[in-house]
Amino acid sequence: MPSYPGVSQHVTRRLPRYYHHLTQLERNGTERISSREFAEMIGFTASQIRQDLNCFGGFGQQGYGYNVTTLRAEIGRILCVDKAHPAIIIGAGHLGFALASNMKFGYCGFRLVGIFDVSPELIGQEVAGCTIRDAAQLKSFCLEHKPMIAAICTPSRVVPELVNTLAELGLKGFWNFSQCDISNFFSGDMVVETVQLSDSLMNLGFNLNSKLENT
Amino acid sequence: MPSYPGVSQHVTRRLPRYYHHLTQLERNGTERISSREFAEMIGFTASQIRQDLNCFGGFGQQGYGYNVTTLRAEIGRILCVDKAHPAIIIGAGHLGFALASNMKFGYCGFRLVGIFDVSPELIGQEVAGCTIRDAAQLKSFCLEHKPMIAAICTPSRVVPELVNTLAELGLKGFWNFSQCDISNFFSGDMVVETVQLSDSLMNLGFNLNSKLENT
Repeated sequence: MPSYPGVSQHVTRRLPRYYHHLTQLERNGTERISSREFAEMIGFTASQIRQDLNCFGGFGQQGYGYNVTTLRAEIGRILCVDKAHPAIIIGAGHLGFALASNMKFGYCGFRLVGIFDVSPELIGQEVAGCTIRDAAQLKSFCLEHKPMIAAICTPSRVVPELVNTLAELGLKGFWNFSQCDISNFFSGDMVVETVQLSDSLMNLGFNLNSKLENT
Repeated sequence: MPSYPGVSQHVTRRLPRYYHHLTQLERNGTERISSREFAEMIGFTASQIRQDLNCFGGFGQQGYGYNVTTLRAEIGRILCVDKAHPAIIIGAGHLGFALASNMKFGYCGFRLVGIFDVSPELIGQEVAGCTIRDAAQLKSFCLEHKPMIAAICTPSRVVPELVNTLAELGLKGFWNFSQCDISNFFSGDMVVETVQLSDSLMNLGFNLNSKLENT
């Protein structure tokens, strides 16, 4: 994969949105789309879309717009959606279970290879073609299957020790759903994506209250 | 609540992070913190923090830093965390169940008043002090309890009809976990916060692949 050192995270974070909408368009049989139509569909401005895509080389043609299949393939290549990196989930409570059963790991460039918990009631259950394993087997499993990332769906108190163990076992990234801020634990040698659901809900609250105030 | 019409969403979206870290600091008994120390803790720059907080009036004192309790209270006031707006969850599968049992609605300015599903196996179960109700009771429930927002945890195919019904029943906002893009359904009269978990996972993949490429 070519890397894009000059491109800001603000831009790269929008790529999955483009990819998602292009996937929908391709599924509906749309062959090409203007940046204006694409903008209306996504809710960005046409100029934003052109600027974003120009960071990676453009892909559009003046007066023609974008070829949906080509653009989808290009963005998929940039996002490396064909890598199928092995991924594991730690914590098979409702959240971990929801991720295992609902997330399209393959679509996002990963494949789910294992899910772990410490609870005897959960160990042995099946979800998304994986048997929930005893967390005590984590080390031997990682040595054999070499997962690249782990989704962290455990209580916060166990997270510091857990992520250090996983880093020692060779994992390269974390999809962090805990309240524990792990991005400061590793000095740049680990990729961390944190999903802060409480921040998201508070943001909804802020926008709701602003709206109520102004009506 | 005063509204902040000139302040960008990039800034307001960072307020929950500040609030979260100030809550931790207050819990640990920290009375004041410099913008430099606060920056290290959060992973922003000190200048970013000063700029962000200046949008709402400042709150810091040259040479003293920030008073933790005062700043937390001010940001809490901006975020309206004391409102306790009634909220419901639609869909009591693993994701809805996880939100009901793990999310601190009160901390975020809401209170969970109901959770709904169509599945006979789920209806009647208890979660977080709420009994899972039959979605057929949604209308009468909303007329009585007047929820302000709904977390949408249903399959995408039912979302368009569902959110229109909820809007007619007087709801003002949606916390959307479905793949269905509902922000375009309403012309500005509805607040929508969408959690795109697949975008988040793809972003992790992009950063992981960039890192692998450069090492």
